[in-house]
Amino acid sequence: MTPHETLRLFTKTLDNLERWMDKAEASAKERSFDVDVLAGARLAPDQFAVLQQVQSACDQAKYAAAYLGGKPAPSHPDTEKTFAELRERIRKCTAFVATVPEKDLAGALERKVAPPWLQGRWLTGRDYLAHVAVPNFFFHATMAYAILRHNGVSLGKMDYIGSLPTREA
Amino acid sequence: MTPHETLRLFTKTLDNLERWMDKAEASAKERSFDVDVLAGARLAPDQFAVLQQVQSACDQAKYAAAYLGGKPAPSHPDTEKTFAELRERIRKCTAFVATVPEKDLAGALERKVAPPWLQGRWLTGRDYLAHVAVPNFFFHATMAYAILRHNGVSLGKMDYIGSLPTREA
Repeated sequence: MTPHETLRLFTKTLDNLERWMDKAEASAKERSFDVDVLAGARLAPDQFAVLQQVQSACDQAKYAAAYLGGKPAPSHPDTEKTFAELRERIRKCTAFVATVPEKDLAGALERKVAPPWLQGRWLTGRDYLAHVAVPNFFFHATMAYAILRHNGVSLGKMDYIGSLPTREA
Repeated sequence: MTPHETLRLFTKTLDNLERWMDKAEASAKERSFDVDVLAGARLAPDQFAVLQQVQSACDQAKYAAAYLGGKPAPSHPDTEKTFAELRERIRKCTAFVATVPEKDLAGALERKVAPPWLQGRWLTGRDYLAHVAVPNFFFHATMAYAILRHNGVSLGKMDYIGSLPTREA
């Protein structure tokens, strides 16, 4: 995957995540509870809830686009409390990712990526994608899915994967 | 990520998964239960247990190596029942992946990948990696992690990510 293909995959998966949220909303309605209860659900008391899992997946996509595209990341404060607000967060994120054109990603693999949490050390763009952005993005997206699934939302693998660009034999 | 880098990332993550299993074993010992109870744990009654999550993560890596490297995938029947057997499965998988050298992956992105479940349709190697292998591999690895975490195994994000090839400023 090129950096541009990686960003498109993140956007596709965030769009899929909105479909999981559709199913969570339908399930909450059917079972007569407020869907925003699920925003606070988690699998362990010392783990992120759905809210933070979605915020974190968005941030992985946002920072990958910013670091690799060589532009500042917009600030998206973690203030969301509801599914409706999480949807806005996802759309702000994918709108920002879409502002990074393929041409700005030329040379991205050789870029020096020095996020604050590396405390002065750095990774090549190539290593940042493979060792940080890709595994972390799918970690948080899958964890959001896992928490919804654990709470009885009827999700299956094709909800996770979304559409496939298959071709005729 | 090139196809070769993607396969290396899968192998790194499967090695990390063995470290999560180390922690699960330590936790089981400390809490006086048989660790193989965790092999059957799941987050929902109609979801794969840890056993199948690990088998599936291995299969995503194995098939990606086989399809993209243009060699047949070895048969690894899903007969495991214990953590010890899952460790053997992981090692058989990573040993196979290691038999695919970088030179065999030249042209992999343009290869025609037609797994049986596509029922005659096919994906380019490029699309197979981005839309199937990468998201599915991390889905199953993260789900194994999530189930262990839900069952009180003390895992954190750095256990998931493993080592980072950071460089000095």
